[in-house]
Amino acid sequence: MSKKDKAQRPKARRPKGFRDAFAPQVIARRDMLDKISSVYERFGFQPLETSSIEYVDALGKFLPDKDAPDTGIFAFRDDLDDQWLGLRYDLTAQLARVVAEHRLELPTPFRRYQYGPVWRREIKPGKDRFRQFYQCDFDTVGAGSITADAEVCEVLAAAMRALGINDFVIRVNNRKVLNGLLEVLGIDDPAICGDVLRSLDKLDDLGMEGLAAQLGEGRKDKSGSIVAGVGLETPAIDQLLAYLQCRADDRAATCAALMKMTEASEAGREGVEELMQIDELLQVMDLGPEQVRFDPSLVRGLDYYTGPVFEIELPFEVKVKGKTKKFGSVAGGGRYDYLVERFTGQKVPATGASIGVDRLLAALEHLEGDSQELPLGPVIVTIMEKDRLGEYQRMVQELRSASIAAELYHGSSGFKAQMKYADRRRAPVVVIAGGSEFEKGEVTLKNMGLGKKLAEEIDDNKTWRNEQPAQTTVASNQLAASVQAILRGE
Amino acid sequence: MSKKDKAQRPKARRPKGFRDAFAPQVIARRDMLDKISSVYERFGFQPLETSSIEYVDALGKFLPDKDAPDTGIFAFRDDLDDQWLGLRYDLTAQLARVVAEHRLELPTPFRRYQYGPVWRREIKPGKDRFRQFYQCDFDTVGAGSITADAEVCEVLAAAMRALGINDFVIRVNNRKVLNGLLEVLGIDDPAICGDVLRSLDKLDDLGMEGLAAQLGEGRKDKSGSIVAGVGLETPAIDQLLAYLQCRADDRAATCAALMKMTEASEAGREGVEELMQIDELLQVMDLGPEQVRFDPSLVRGLDYYTGPVFEIELPFEVKVKGKTKKFGSVAGGGRYDYLVERFTGQKVPATGASIGVDRLLAALEHLEGDSQELPLGPVIVTIMEKDRLGEYQRMVQELRSASIAAELYHGSSGFKAQMKYADRRRAPVVVIAGGSEFEKGEVTLKNMGLGKKLAEEIDDNKTWRNEQPAQTTVASNQLAASVQAILRGE
Repeated sequence: MSKKDKAQRPKARRPKGFRDAFAPQVIARRDMLDKISSVYERFGFQPLETSSIEYVDALGKFLPDKDAPDTGIFAFRDDLDDQWLGLRYDLTAQLARVVAEHRLELPTPFRRYQYGPVWRREIKPGKDRFRQFYQCDFDTVGAGSITADAEVCEVLAAAMRALGINDFVIRVNNRKVLNGLLEVLGIDDPAICGDVLRSLDKLDDLGMEGLAAQLGEGRKDKSGSIVAGVGLETPAIDQLLAYLQCRADDRAATCAALMKMTEASEAGREGVEELMQIDELLQVMDLGPEQVRFDPSLVRGLDYYTGPVFEIELPFEVKVKGKTKKFGSVAGGGRYDYLVERFTGQKVPATGASIGVDRLLAALEHLEGDSQELPLGPVIVTIMEKDRLGEYQRMVQELRSASIAAELYHGSSGFKAQMKYADRRRAPVVVIAGGSEFEKGEVTLKNMGLGKKLAEEIDDNKTWRNEQPAQTTVASNQLAASVQAILRGE
Repeated sequence: MSKKDKAQRPKARRPKGFRDAFAPQVIARRDMLDKISSVYERFGFQPLETSSIEYVDALGKFLPDKDAPDTGIFAFRDDLDDQWLGLRYDLTAQLARVVAEHRLELPTPFRRYQYGPVWRREIKPGKDRFRQFYQCDFDTVGAGSITADAEVCEVLAAAMRALGINDFVIRVNNRKVLNGLLEVLGIDDPAICGDVLRSLDKLDDLGMEGLAAQLGEGRKDKSGSIVAGVGLETPAIDQLLAYLQCRADDRAATCAALMKMTEASEAGREGVEELMQIDELLQVMDLGPEQVRFDPSLVRGLDYYTGPVFEIELPFEVKVKGKTKKFGSVAGGGRYDYLVERFTGQKVPATGASIGVDRLLAALEHLEGDSQELPLGPVIVTIMEKDRLGEYQRMVQELRSASIAAELYHGSSGFKAQMKYADRRRAPVVVIAGGSEFEKGEVTLKNMGLGKKLAEEIDDNKTWRNEQPAQTTVASNQLAASVQAILRGE
């Protein structure tokens, strides 16, 4: 081949920040999504699948305030009607568009679940930061009742249990309580409010002391650089720290403490009352404080939350860069009453949550051990004589008719490579027939599982090679029955 | 609301050429993909899920020969490493990239299936032409054996049968035969070869006469405009028409006739011999000529096919714009030995096929009647008294514990709207409890299916209204058992 040809050949590599999922990952993810979907359906949510692409103005957060609206999302100008199109970055913005577009045909409330990939234009993709990942959401749109918020906890708990995860904590807070607190403290500058909320959300990372510094003059981060503080005065900082101390094991106690701090504000009072109602419903749901905890430090990043917010935390510990820390959040959500209003001008109360599928898969893998093993492959029928393809085909046919996953070897390599192939595919059984077998009307079966086990047990390589204890020869009309017997472990 | 606010609100509409799938469609598609996947797995194919985005140079067909490579695909320049990224337009180009990238870790042959959306930048999206649609592919890469090609027919037939479709024809041809024919005719200008193949592929539309004109001087289309012809001389045209006449009910007869026409060419001979081998294997597979037909007119558009090509046709008739025509193709594929070579420089023989999921769904809908009906919804527990939320919650809880899909009404409307909601959700049963029920420890159940039936049968609206025969009242501790009895049709 000429140098020129080689130079023109593209390099085979996937784009940075993207992944391919091979059989073990695809199967694990599919299995997880099936289980979660069953839970969602038991609660009356029905599936929806929106297209991956939206007009950028409908995606909302990334409104085109400059020529190219593509910070954070993958966007492209489309000739068709001279608009910007973008890949969805979550499933909620699309839900709002769907509800606004079809509001006359859809029932109210509209309860849907959806799973699928979302795309983010990460500037620094890395080990835990991808440009495409899966979400699995459920939402109730058109539901003002607090029962819908309490149900979010119930659905999340049921989903975790369906996956065999019993050690989880659902953290709950209410944005109205946070707003009430800021009101009581007389903090009304939106920028400072944002800074305060962002700081509270970092309690777990910073600790009380670090948080106090962050709320005040600023602090030094690990590298020693100065991080600018919010600049609050000491009395306000003390109040905020006291607010965080409201976290108690008993949800009613947390509510009582929060009420004391925020009852001077109408929003605060309303927020705490909602938490109290949620607590009552949680008790009916048998969700005690070890499963659902009211946590004043929970904020949740997105601007659009307007009421109760939720986050599932998995408390088991993992090592990250040599440091032991909690596995952390695998799902989150909350009430957002203004998302549909963006389109219609009418307030439509909504609540729901999103499970981070890839993150939860990582958690399951950690809990259950390595699930990356290839699943057991098909029975492989090897080709010993190339002029008997029809007869090999008949064998594979017979196996499949008996509902055994089976495959004819379609490559062009010799016997040894075929056995190696069967091994790589994790074939449970290999079917072998050469001249002498055909003559006698027989077929040889190699039990690959047993072969492996014996190869590990038998030291005497010679015995092993000569006796081939994992191989049996059977009459060819007994092929399917004999393979089935091996698969059953007989 | 001010005019300015309204002007800034985006219109809720999905982009042109894209679709949202609601519950009936999502469920029908999922069901179809499950059935097809099971077939693929029985044949030993394992799932793969590539990311949606590739470097544009890896997508191949759309190499950036100009600044913006985005004709036909959705592409965008990415800052991260200053390259063009594009959404996949099929699943095969990605398979080639994956095999080239991971060739040392993957078994040979590599047998994978994949389903998922693909994207095409259609300039004129319309009723049957979308910018995002589903494909469901299976391929064997690293398989030179003709058994792999014959197996494609077997897999496609098994997939159709798994979906309950028994009336299908798999058309088979071999590009080597077509190439041999062109060689025998002395046609070697690549442009003219392309024109001839494209014309042959239109046999079903043009008929023999129209095709003859198309191959020669040209023809008038329906609108009366002149379509330029390929410009062949009469003897060559006669040969091509004779070639098409090789189509016979008997595959062996077709092979014999094709051999006569093309045996002067090595490619032609090889191609016919392959078809003969496929015929032998098809017989072992019990796939007779009514299921798999050798069809000399089949070409398949893509440039990369190098051997046997396949297409499933559904022969039942549909009306399109008032004209009756066959439903037509729902899947296609073939052998492509050069796709991986683009990356590695080494020829890697491969074969497989792609099922057009959305097209097949449309066929199923036509065959089975309207499947667009919403599936049965959950049992709905209505809210009559807002201060008894905990008690309603307990009811819905009890139903779910008995594995009954159930939902609490989370909206804020009155009873009539709640019943309308239950009707729109296709709830089988509605649970009703007001003051008097709570007092007596009872609960009222409305059988929605029966209610509908009676409403249709009973003329006397008054009887209906007063007696409410579809309603029963039961002790509240009998809730789950009574609902179950209704669901069982008792």
